[in-house]
Amino acid sequence: MNSATWIEDPAFTRDRPFGPQTLPYGVVDDGSGPRVAVRVGDHALPLASVAGALGELADLVTGTSLDPLLAASRAEWSALRARLTELVTSADRPAGAELVPLAGVRALLPFTVADYVDFYSSRHHAENVGRIMRPDSDPLLPNWTHLPVGYHGRAGTVVVSGTDVVRPHGQRRGDPLPKFGPSGRLDIEAEVGFVCGGPVTARVPTSDVAEHVFGVVLVNDWSARDIQGWEYQPLGPFLGKSFATSVSAWVTPLEALAGARVPVPDPGHPRLPYLVEDQPWGLDLRLEVTWNGTVVTRPRFAHMAYSCAQQLAHLTVNGATVRPGDLFASGTVSGPERERLGCFLELSWGGREPIALADGVTRTFLEDGDTVVITATAPGADGSVVGLAEVAGTVLPADE
Amino acid sequence: MNSATWIEDPAFTRDRPFGPQTLPYGVVDDGSGPRVAVRVGDHALPLASVAGALGELADLVTGTSLDPLLAASRAEWSALRARLTELVTSADRPAGAELVPLAGVRALLPFTVADYVDFYSSRHHAENVGRIMRPDSDPLLPNWTHLPVGYHGRAGTVVVSGTDVVRPHGQRRGDPLPKFGPSGRLDIEAEVGFVCGGPVTARVPTSDVAEHVFGVVLVNDWSARDIQGWEYQPLGPFLGKSFATSVSAWVTPLEALAGARVPVPDPGHPRLPYLVEDQPWGLDLRLEVTWNGTVVTRPRFAHMAYSCAQQLAHLTVNGATVRPGDLFASGTVSGPERERLGCFLELSWGGREPIALADGVTRTFLEDGDTVVITATAPGADGSVVGLAEVAGTVLPADE
Repeated sequence: MNSATWIEDPAFTRDRPFGPQTLPYGVVDDGSGPRVAVRVGDHALPLASVAGALGELADLVTGTSLDPLLAASRAEWSALRARLTELVTSADRPAGAELVPLAGVRALLPFTVADYVDFYSSRHHAENVGRIMRPDSDPLLPNWTHLPVGYHGRAGTVVVSGTDVVRPHGQRRGDPLPKFGPSGRLDIEAEVGFVCGGPVTARVPTSDVAEHVFGVVLVNDWSARDIQGWEYQPLGPFLGKSFATSVSAWVTPLEALAGARVPVPDPGHPRLPYLVEDQPWGLDLRLEVTWNGTVVTRPRFAHMAYSCAQQLAHLTVNGATVRPGDLFASGTVSGPERERLGCFLELSWGGREPIALADGVTRTFLEDGDTVVITATAPGADGSVVGLAEVAGTVLPADE
Repeated sequence: MNSATWIEDPAFTRDRPFGPQTLPYGVVDDGSGPRVAVRVGDHALPLASVAGALGELADLVTGTSLDPLLAASRAEWSALRARLTELVTSADRPAGAELVPLAGVRALLPFTVADYVDFYSSRHHAENVGRIMRPDSDPLLPNWTHLPVGYHGRAGTVVVSGTDVVRPHGQRRGDPLPKFGPSGRLDIEAEVGFVCGGPVTARVPTSDVAEHVFGVVLVNDWSARDIQGWEYQPLGPFLGKSFATSVSAWVTPLEALAGARVPVPDPGHPRLPYLVEDQPWGLDLRLEVTWNGTVVTRPRFAHMAYSCAQQLAHLTVNGATVRPGDLFASGTVSGPERERLGCFLELSWGGREPIALADGVTRTFLEDGDTVVITATAPGADGSVVGLAEVAGTVLPADE
């Protein structure tokens, strides 16, 4: 399939995650300052270098972040994607086009995060956490099957893939007084995040999700379970989460995932009308979580109980506005089988069942120096594969 | 006391809330576009009109928001306040100085809200809500006396005083299926908010709070109790709060409240070292809540169990950064007596004890058309009184 394009990169083919069917957007710096780019295989194409071929759309992608692009409209997103598809699949190199190997650039947080919301939309995850953290009560609370439970997180500590994560200090349960020190139960949550754009508005119906979701990233919602377990009642997670949330450096356009759309599971009871979808907005994304080089789990996003359309409709049904740069994440992606659980709290069942890594090493929670990488692919059109760029991070020891 | 100043405004005296001892900052638009101003009595002094007298500090206050001022340092905040104090108390009108009556301007949201956090630091409020919402368990959860419980709210729906609040739709408990519609239990929470500035940093010790808190606003954390009661477990309040949070149009500098500092109550057990204060950062602010013209409660901020210094130290102890524009609110300010309760859920004891307004009208929760105004004062130096500007809002009927 690597027919006549001017881009000579063996990873830029339709059977590879970052071929011409994907074209995710990011911001790279090769030493000359931040530039918006699309990813083509293992290269970045800085869009300022092809501005002349983009016409008026160039204004959206010649700054230092994706913010102007997010503030544009779905029609502009589509027009830009169509034009870029032409450019990267043409036989002739567009005048001035630069290609920068990804190995030679630093990828930056590609947009300004406005509000960050984290949902809790895997039934398997919610039930497992309920069993582990509240063993004496029903694992699933009564509201869970009727609404996508969620909460606001800290936008200011969303960081780009590759950023080291310092082990947080905090309070944890103790008797008679709480203990204080570095978290001893540092965990990940493998999630999918939706990057919002388009006009500021409230009450987005499920049918309008594509007007307000620009694209998709992978998210690692780092979680300090001991801090979270002590603090979270009655107002929810706070310092157990707010130290860092990592996102992919590349935002895959929602449009690239048209071939991955699937219905969400039936809840087994009627849905309130504002949560009913006229088209399916579940996504068949296949995640893979690697811990120090060992693949430890392969969660499937198709197992999630609520779609991005339902989440956004819920988020705004009370009149809350959604703005360009808003980010909402799915919650941990866990499936029914052990090999599809999306966090180490579940994989180690509360720390009681160690997880085997390569060379006989075992883990329950994260140790200093550990590296976690989350990747994902989805089915694309005509048998192609669409990639979500990795979100990676390494744990550094707690500060003194 | 209205001695020789050029500002001829009977409200600009030291025994009135917005005399020269206060000098809060805001952004006003009299039709010529947004301008940063200080409030002098019932007038605004746009700072662009006295830029010539401010030297290099003018750059901080001649834009369209307080953002550059917040991003400056405590030393610059102090220097600017000292210079403005000279200007507004001098006998001669500075060249070019404009005075605009507040009645003739629109006051805008004065800064870009970065992250918004809401604490829960009144013991009386936490106990009362526990008794009303969880009657079968201990009103105060075990973590409460050891840490300032808090959660992130929605920054994008923080609005300035005077903005109407549309009654939100949402899910509420129902049997067998939840109900959906306009909230029937719309409430206020009278709170005090702290506006952050200075360098971006993590782990702010209690002794450094004045380097990172620029000033103080009043906050009305509008709350839909029926939506909140159904959604909030296990991840905390979400749509019951995110439709709107109102803040004062004027930010009173923390420096103006030096005379109001008081110790917070002793928790009765040792504090973890990061929450110990070397100086008291409680504040003797006296709030007043008016419902359709009737004063219904007079909460005292001195009753709060955690200070802004403890809240900020907690918020950042896990490595989370604080940025200019971050806003953290105290939580509902409730005292031990009925006449000091800070929300209508408490004042009406869950809706069971109606509250008398003027002319024999009674209320439990808010009805369409109701207006709530929260004001506050604090003791200033030399017997003066320092004002926090009102936060006002009127409830509009739910959208169709």
